[in-house]
Amino acid sequence: MSDLIIRNCRPNGGDTADILIRNGRIAHIGTVTDAPGVAEEDAGGRIAIPGLVDTHTHLDKALLGHPWYRNDVGPNLLDKIDNERAVKKALKLDPYTQAMRQSLLSLSWGTTHIRSHVDVDTDGGVSAVEGVMRAKAELAGTVDIEIVAFPQSGLMRRPGTLELMDQAMAMGADMVGGLDPCGIDRDPKGHLDAIFALAEKHGKPMDIHLHEPAELGAFSMEMIFERIEALGMEGRVAISHAFCLGANDWNRTQGLIDRCAELGVAILTTAPASRDVPAIKRLDAAGVKVGAGNDGFRDTWGPYGSGDMLERAMFVGMRNNFRRDVEVERALAICTTGGAEVMAIEDYGLTEGGLGDVVVVEGAALADAVSRHAVRPLVVRGGKVVARDGETLRKAP
Amino acid sequence: MSDLIIRNCRPNGGDTADILIRNGRIAHIGTVTDAPGVAEEDAGGRIAIPGLVDTHTHLDKALLGHPWYRNDVGPNLLDKIDNERAVKKALKLDPYTQAMRQSLLSLSWGTTHIRSHVDVDTDGGVSAVEGVMRAKAELAGTVDIEIVAFPQSGLMRRPGTLELMDQAMAMGADMVGGLDPCGIDRDPKGHLDAIFALAEKHGKPMDIHLHEPAELGAFSMEMIFERIEALGMEGRVAISHAFCLGANDWNRTQGLIDRCAELGVAILTTAPASRDVPAIKRLDAAGVKVGAGNDGFRDTWGPYGSGDMLERAMFVGMRNNFRRDVEVERALAICTTGGAEVMAIEDYGLTEGGLGDVVVVEGAALADAVSRHAVRPLVVRGGKVVARDGETLRKAP
Ligand SMILES: [Zn+2]
Ligand SMILES: [Zn+2]
Repeated sequence: MSDLIIRNCRPNGGDTADILIRNGRIAHIGTVTDAPGVAEEDAGGRIAIPGLVDTHTHLDKALLGHPWYRNDVGPNLLDKIDNERAVKKALKLDPYTQAMRQSLLSLSWGTTHIRSHVDVDTDGGVSAVEGVMRAKAELAGTVDIEIVAFPQSGLMRRPGTLELMDQAMAMGADMVGGLDPCGIDRDPKGHLDAIFALAEKHGKPMDIHLHEPAELGAFSMEMIFERIEALGMEGRVAISHAFCLGANDWNRTQGLIDRCAELGVAILTTAPASRDVPAIKRLDAAGVKVGAGNDGFRDTWGPYGSGDMLERAMFVGMRNNFRRDVEVERALAICTTGGAEVMAIEDYGLTEGGLGDVVVVEGAALADAVSRHAVRPLVVRGGKVVARDGETLRKAP
Repeated sequence: MSDLIIRNCRPNGGDTADILIRNGRIAHIGTVTDAPGVAEEDAGGRIAIPGLVDTHTHLDKALLGHPWYRNDVGPNLLDKIDNERAVKKALKLDPYTQAMRQSLLSLSWGTTHIRSHVDVDTDGGVSAVEGVMRAKAELAGTVDIEIVAFPQSGLMRRPGTLELMDQAMAMGADMVGGLDPCGIDRDPKGHLDAIFALAEKHGKPMDIHLHEPAELGAFSMEMIFERIEALGMEGRVAISHAFCLGANDWNRTQGLIDRCAELGVAILTTAPASRDVPAIKRLDAAGVKVGAGNDGFRDTWGPYGSGDMLERAMFVGMRNNFRRDVEVERALAICTTGGAEVMAIEDYGLTEGGLGDVVVVEGAALADAVSRHAVRPLVVRGGKVVARDGETLRKAP
């Protein structure tokens, strides 16, 4: 835990100030005149924001450091899932190495906290969880990682997966994951009963991938709601994607959104351009917690993405037709404070007593910073410089 | 018109070759052994593509070189239109200067051809057309610009605009523009009769902004079709945006799409994430000509965008859920050959006898280049180096 003065920055786009960090915590924001022996950085009048929070990604999937993967995969979800397992084997993809590469890439963009789903299946067993747990341990305090044990290839359709999920939780995974109970497993009752039982057994919260659109997703979501209520899991379940909340029938979707608010279900979005998605303003109006994530990128699923949550804020803004500065600021807040609330990061934010995590960004205003999403000149974690001009001081394997 | 050898490049992502340009034209692609006295560039094994084509933008609108514009504009189209006229006046925005800045920024990304709508209204008169025409003349052969006289503030609702549009065409604007005949002018017959009459009088083709969604846009589009047939304007009318072609009713939209193909109506898209848009695969299947554009960016309408057509190819791909390499290559082709066909650029493309326009891009494959859309190491126009590492040799005012 370090001391540092960041001079001449604009916290959250406000007036120019210095930020004094003592023992890894923000001790003062304002004018810092004398702090003998404390290292200094000059932000050159640039905007400073707190650490970016990626609430939905897959640290075991990106092909970072590997040759370009030519994607000829079929159009169905199962095509992509089966293809991925095959490619992982063929490339001998090492979950630890990939997790280190992606986490440090994210850190170079200023991301300090990541929630990662990690594949558990009967091909790879729990090896991906082991690998990402190793990266998590090594990076603790630098990039904080939350691990969701994730049955990517299905749970009920591949016997043995549930036992592996149980093993992953016993090993110390932070959350129980799930995936399209109808669309993939074709057994919503079986799937949901199984993962809720795991969460209960291990006393852990949940984060469920739900790509199912419209009425199919609504049906699965209602079955999730029923189990949250029955098991007292209020405030402990997140739903990722939740495309069904972007369906056309306003009254139908509003009922679901209101239930998310009542049951404390957080919605985590990547704001994809090609799918119906929940509208941020609607979720906000209903009081639903919202985080954003990059999801997988540059992997066997698709070619796009950089790992940058400032670029993700731009995608959130573009998908939601956010044009006014206050709207773009809201898109950014989903990638900072929104994600921090979802991940329950204590003392998050640029405030006295808060975490000494400061990201210096390019741009004259917060919306400008989102629009440019240029290389970050400086990233500070717990009062320590961890990245400069897009390069982390610690190098990835 | 210059001579140049570009060594060690991969034309359109294929095998490594040299490109010999003589008198501004591609003389040979393959191995170039002896060409004494001809300047050489080494592409370092990178991919080379032809010049990028931006078929829809507004060279008189971007606020490049001005301080950040804080956007507090209301949600309606008319709010944005009225606000823009006010801001232009307040900033004393100079159309020539802005057009030079944006065109050269585009050139730094490898864009060689631009179709720009240019505002004609009773506040600014034809001054924006004059300014962009001056930039067009100065940049001819470097960035080739096509000017659409564009009644941004409405035609029928602002008396005097039609006379100014006529004046703009007489001054030498290349195309007649139009805008939401119902949504803005509230007089579709009046608007369309007027602009088609202008096109007939001046013997010029047309490009009509059509944001109107669903049945409203379909209605306007049918009125456009009627006039194309009546006046023999087949193959000479483009419709920009055409959101109505992304509406839900499949049979209804297919009828419109088929008519676009029959009447040679090109569809120009920005593939916005927040609107219903025509699906590229559908347009392709029907044989409709498709181009893409960045539209306005970093202006009073919204904060996003960089002017880069490789990034736009990414947006086209993301909006259309293009994940396979061949799909992403199609998204890119819309920004190269697709736009070239729409703008009728002669001898376009990396082929012997073709224009000596070569853009060197970063990335191991075309889809990788789209995904990264990194700074262009080299841009060549007519055998002359015009930009290097994201900087044009000619500086903007
Ligand atoms: Zn995911
Ligand atoms: Zn436009």
